[in-house]
Amino acid sequence: MSMRGLQYHGAQDIRYNTEIPVPEVTNPNDVIVKVAYCGICGTDLHEFEVPIFFANATTKEGDRISGKQLPLVLGHEFSGIVQAVGANVTKVTPGDHVVVETTGHCSDRREYFKYNTEEPECQSCELGYENTCKDLNFLGLGVDNGALAEYTKYHQDHVLKVDKKIPLDVDALIEPLSVVYHAVELAGFKEGEDALVLGSGPIGLATLLILQAKGASKVVVSEPASVRREQAVKLGAVGFNPFEFGENATEELRKLGSRGQGFAKAFDCSGIPATYTTSIHALRAHGVACNVAIWPHKSVAHYVMDVTLEEKTSVGSLGYQTKDFKGVIELLESGKLDVEKVKSLITGKVGLKEGVTKGFKELIEHKDKHIKILVSPDL
Amino acid sequence: MSMRGLQYHGAQDIRYNTEIPVPEVTNPNDVIVKVAYCGICGTDLHEFEVPIFFANATTKEGDRISGKQLPLVLGHEFSGIVQAVGANVTKVTPGDHVVVETTGHCSDRREYFKYNTEEPECQSCELGYENTCKDLNFLGLGVDNGALAEYTKYHQDHVLKVDKKIPLDVDALIEPLSVVYHAVELAGFKEGEDALVLGSGPIGLATLLILQAKGASKVVVSEPASVRREQAVKLGAVGFNPFEFGENATEELRKLGSRGQGFAKAFDCSGIPATYTTSIHALRAHGVACNVAIWPHKSVAHYVMDVTLEEKTSVGSLGYQTKDFKGVIELLESGKLDVEKVKSLITGKVGLKEGVTKGFKELIEHKDKHIKILVSPDL
Ligand SMILES: [Zn+2]
Ligand SMILES: [Zn+2]
Ligand SMILES: [Zn+2]
Ligand SMILES: [Zn+2]
Repeated sequence: MSMRGLQYHGAQDIRYNTEIPVPEVTNPNDVIVKVAYCGICGTDLHEFEVPIFFANATTKEGDRISGKQLPLVLGHEFSGIVQAVGANVTKVTPGDHVVVETTGHCSDRREYFKYNTEEPECQSCELGYENTCKDLNFLGLGVDNGALAEYTKYHQDHVLKVDKKIPLDVDALIEPLSVVYHAVELAGFKEGEDALVLGSGPIGLATLLILQAKGASKVVVSEPASVRREQAVKLGAVGFNPFEFGENATEELRKLGSRGQGFAKAFDCSGIPATYTTSIHALRAHGVACNVAIWPHKSVAHYVMDVTLEEKTSVGSLGYQTKDFKGVIELLESGKLDVEKVKSLITGKVGLKEGVTKGFKELIEHKDKHIKILVSPDL
Repeated sequence: MSMRGLQYHGAQDIRYNTEIPVPEVTNPNDVIVKVAYCGICGTDLHEFEVPIFFANATTKEGDRISGKQLPLVLGHEFSGIVQAVGANVTKVTPGDHVVVETTGHCSDRREYFKYNTEEPECQSCELGYENTCKDLNFLGLGVDNGALAEYTKYHQDHVLKVDKKIPLDVDALIEPLSVVYHAVELAGFKEGEDALVLGSGPIGLATLLILQAKGASKVVVSEPASVRREQAVKLGAVGFNPFEFGENATEELRKLGSRGQGFAKAFDCSGIPATYTTSIHALRAHGVACNVAIWPHKSVAHYVMDVTLEEKTSVGSLGYQTKDFKGVIELLESGKLDVEKVKSLITGKVGLKEGVTKGFKELIEHKDKHIKILVSPDL
């Protein structure tokens, strides 16, 4: 049996193929998922330009977790319906609505892919932080075939059931929401605290929604581009345009903290020197600045006493763990995370065949028009 | 009644005076302490060159916490014996061996000094972090007369009793030990973890002792100066000379972590760009780098992804709270913190009269010969 899907062959080379073999249960822990919706994110766009996550899969040695080689199906942020399960699967049953936490790390290499099994577990995995596994990669980014296809599969430990009252298109956003949920938890955010979000792109908006769902007393989103800033305001943020205040921007921002003296937490979702510095300076005493952005190898001028004098913390967040998916699902199912607000982040839906032209290329060419484009095999 | 003491009149101007009035109980919470030993630290030496903490006390408005003006007695790290107490004092009684947590913050201004009482509590104090009070200062650095004299006094809330089995000269080191105890707690250090200490001056050595007392599995002290490094080794550290390895120093350091891949915690007790960068790079995944040094206003090249890729944390520690004094006293009384090791940090004892020549000037001119010089009115 074959299916339709988008395969990554290399930079600028994503091909629509109708002859991809449908995945089958080959491991008793396998869950076969019929894909409903799969988002395209900045990482996918970056891989479209230059393979980073896919880099190992382009070599003879293959991916560090699975040994797989190109071509592989793209897509790592998705929802779907369980189609079939292996004999040992207890966590889900056919018909369930599910999302997949797509990381591949040391234990997946050894227990699922049975690849390089003699390689010792890395320190992060040993300490229980699989999200910073030294060989971390994702289904749909090189570990194995992803979800820009009709079907995909993974070990049941990566598959999480979602209540059917949540629409499947909204479910597809659980993955990007988990990225920022992880950051909000890592920063030690507590209900009732205020927070600053720097940058109002897809990650910034997702951070806003998670902060609201977790009971932030106030969220200020700083973003110079008015279209993006307005999106944050529409979702309930206090908008701030740093360009309006020039040199005094940080001082003005601090006044917007609930006590008028800075924020408990700041999330840098832009990743430029100005936002890094602001994320520290705009904090109140004992505040935490958390980087959520991916930076090029470029340094920032850091003043150690800026952190020390008020015992502030600077931390960086990377990816997620299964617990973060569970957290987001709980917020959605309990209604704390507003389904309609999440839905409003979806600015386009396209079929598999137009995935490259109306998905990847549309996002690259009309960046500011979109927050999230979903691809569906049913369109 | 008058007493002998060293008064600060300004930069380069510390005067020995035999006609200082002996402090008396004027507040029902007062504790009068007969000083046993008082240390001289880097902050005192810095004030000797340029008034920073004393700056406000040089003006007509006076200190921000107490309104006091120069001249004032120096000395903020000391031990002594309770001489007399006010009517409300319940925490100590005459004859007790005590140390004094000498901070002055918002509540001291309002409740003890009754100065500028209408000024609102600062955010740090409101949040319970008096150590980062916006007007933070210390007894012996401008808040009030300190302990380079025969007697001093403060509110009972700042006075802590120490078991008489601990020698009074060792008690005088509880203050500098509390500075690093605070840092070790702030960094989230847990028993059994390994740690790196950068710099083997008085603060670095104190950090080493607290880490040992709190059950570190291994402490590596990195210090290029061999005399200082040997002091750390003598106290039980693994010594590391970064100059021996040049460009590979950080890589070699990481190998000394208990799993060969960096340290759980790193304490920068030097405060130069190289030690900041090393404090981050030498960490294992999810490690915490804590600045304990005081920096000039000079930036470091910080790579945000260095923190993000393994979810490391960069934090700065400032001063202490009463809880940190309690922590150090408990470690000393329980024997976890080795009294003999603490005693070995004392490299000189001088009388009050020679305090400037054999204390301040000796430390400035023969920095590497000394760790801690104590001044005693009884010598
Ligand atoms: Zn993504
Ligand atoms: Zn791993
Ligand atoms: Zn001191
Ligand atoms: Zn205060």
